[in-house]
Amino acid sequence: MRVAGTPHRTIALARDGWSVEVIDQTALPHRFELVRLTSSADAARAIRDMVVRGAPLIGATAAYGMALALRDDPTDRCLYAAARALVATRPTAVNLGRAVRAMLDHLRAVSPRQRVAAAYARAGALCEEDVAANRALGGHGLAILRGLAERNGGGPVNVLTHCNAGWLATVDWGTALAPVYLAAGEGVPVHVWVTETRPRNQGALTAWELAHEDVPHTFTVDNAAGHLMRLGKVDVVLVGTDRTTAAGDVCNKIGTYLLAAAARDNDLPFYAAVPGPSIDWETDDSAAIPIEERQAREVTHVAGLDGDERAATVRVAPDGTPIANFGFDVTPARLVTGLITERGVAGASREGLQGLYPDGA
Amino acid sequence: MRVAGTPHRTIALARDGWSVEVIDQTALPHRFELVRLTSSADAARAIRDMVVRGAPLIGATAAYGMALALRDDPTDRCLYAAARALVATRPTAVNLGRAVRAMLDHLRAVSPRQRVAAAYARAGALCEEDVAANRALGGHGLAILRGLAERNGGGPVNVLTHCNAGWLATVDWGTALAPVYLAAGEGVPVHVWVTETRPRNQGALTAWELAHEDVPHTFTVDNAAGHLMRLGKVDVVLVGTDRTTAAGDVCNKIGTYLLAAAARDNDLPFYAAVPGPSIDWETDDSAAIPIEERQAREVTHVAGLDGDERAATVRVAPDGTPIANFGFDVTPARLVTGLITERGVAGASREGLQGLYPDGA
Repeated sequence: MRVAGTPHRTIALARDGWSVEVIDQTALPHRFELVRLTSSADAARAIRDMVVRGAPLIGATAAYGMALALRDDPTDRCLYAAARALVATRPTAVNLGRAVRAMLDHLRAVSPRQRVAAAYARAGALCEEDVAANRALGGHGLAILRGLAERNGGGPVNVLTHCNAGWLATVDWGTALAPVYLAAGEGVPVHVWVTETRPRNQGALTAWELAHEDVPHTFTVDNAAGHLMRLGKVDVVLVGTDRTTAAGDVCNKIGTYLLAAAARDNDLPFYAAVPGPSIDWETDDSAAIPIEERQAREVTHVAGLDGDERAATVRVAPDGTPIANFGFDVTPARLVTGLITERGVAGASREGLQGLYPDGA
Repeated sequence: MRVAGTPHRTIALARDGWSVEVIDQTALPHRFELVRLTSSADAARAIRDMVVRGAPLIGATAAYGMALALRDDPTDRCLYAAARALVATRPTAVNLGRAVRAMLDHLRAVSPRQRVAAAYARAGALCEEDVAANRALGGHGLAILRGLAERNGGGPVNVLTHCNAGWLATVDWGTALAPVYLAAGEGVPVHVWVTETRPRNQGALTAWELAHEDVPHTFTVDNAAGHLMRLGKVDVVLVGTDRTTAAGDVCNKIGTYLLAAAARDNDLPFYAAVPGPSIDWETDDSAAIPIEERQAREVTHVAGLDGDERAATVRVAPDGTPIANFGFDVTPARLVTGLITERGVAGASREGLQGLYPDGA
């Protein structure tokens, strides 16, 4: 998508043909900067420190991390060590493990001499698959937005989204925002309510994306979402997912479940954008999903720009206050209107998902 | 309640016997400072800039603001001008208008020569009434917490609260936290989940209060509340109110409604602490409550302490992002388990409230 009018992807090979360039998402929305990853450790660090974030982009970064590892040492030992290190960076998103496993499955059958080229090719293919899947997912979501616009007499559709499930969370297009970008491109009037998404304020990334694509939007604190629904200012809630169980329970950024509960209380549709690779076919029980607990500092401190437009951090909680910081929550399938996938819109149930993925993958 | 072991109230006459000292709540939780109000304009500014906040304390500050106005000029003209200016400071809390009206009703019958003394006496009495009402309300809430502790086999009761409805929001004791302080004092084990409460982070005030009273607590982002409920880590949601309609709809800090919707989804009790003066007997229709929209800067910027422990502010949203900033939301009576008042616990309905307030006041 566009940054100041120029098309970009979140991850791409650098001009040298081997190092990997990613957008530094910790610098956004204030500064647009590229970071060069030259080793598997760089890739792992980028995932752990959320230089890259979003389940699909984490998967793509891990895939290139495998390629970078093999460039240093194409042996089995290195292959497995890199896989282990990359998978350990973040526990909740299922795409990460899936991308690493796909790379492993592909590469262990390739001789060490040919592994580097094979790894780059496979990582590149994974990126293209992500872009194509998001584009297809967007088309299915577009049909929903178009239907809501017609119901509104052609008036704007008010979408409420949470966190960042835009192109910055993927290689391109995004998941929850792919339908929005397609709608805007096709002249379906759309306005997006962007929740801040404490503690890490990824809503600012969403606002930044939408501004660069000229999509009308309004930024609010997370707390405002229910009030907006009660005022009739929301037509649909549309979020991403880090992992969706085979039973249709949606694990996503902390706070998503509150939106779903409020949407239900207001009889509003709640959709999750769920690319196939984020479905965890092995889990029916959402209680089995490991929910990442992150450091207290994300809650106690807030990063931004100071009065001189320099990066700065302030502490907001009293010194020494006990903190809990869960990264994700689970929205039970019963609160989910539908799962928008690259193959169509599924009911949030095992039957619904199996209807689109009969092979369970 | 205690600050570093010393009992304090949020508002009191200064030693000079006429100026009014309040705790500067914009400096908390980082610095404990008193501010001296010497004019009605000082009082209005303190309310508008949220140096004082919380519906009951706003009412008390406005009452003293009337006394300060009359000290400069005890005529009718000044009496009414001060009343108008003070009422205009903030639109949502009903206590403000009620306190100013109580002062007006009392003082217009008093001759200008005696008005100053009468105003100070009436303002002081309003403060004492607030303290007594909160203490009584706390007793009724304590019974609820005691019941939950027994159900938990004497184990700790996990209370989730939002914003600050503690002693800082009142003259003393607080509303939603009064039962908690009484429980802690009587050995009923209690732990409080404190939500940050963006955009102004009044949860930090709650954490500060609880720490000074040695009440176990954990601070989280607002988004975490639903997840905590789903994990079984919340026994009861207990919040304050800025205005509760005669029909039992609870207007409170933005985000409260999300908590109520999630509490219902988890079959958890949701109580509001509602002192009599915060009941709006003239309003059945919660849509008629004016919801304050505050400046965008509260959302785009976050205040705290920088690395050198100096007050600092950072901008978190992209420059120029459109913002919506509603100060309050309304939780419909159907989601409210009960209204804890100084006269007992009422059902959230006209009948429930009239049972305790047959005279409608």
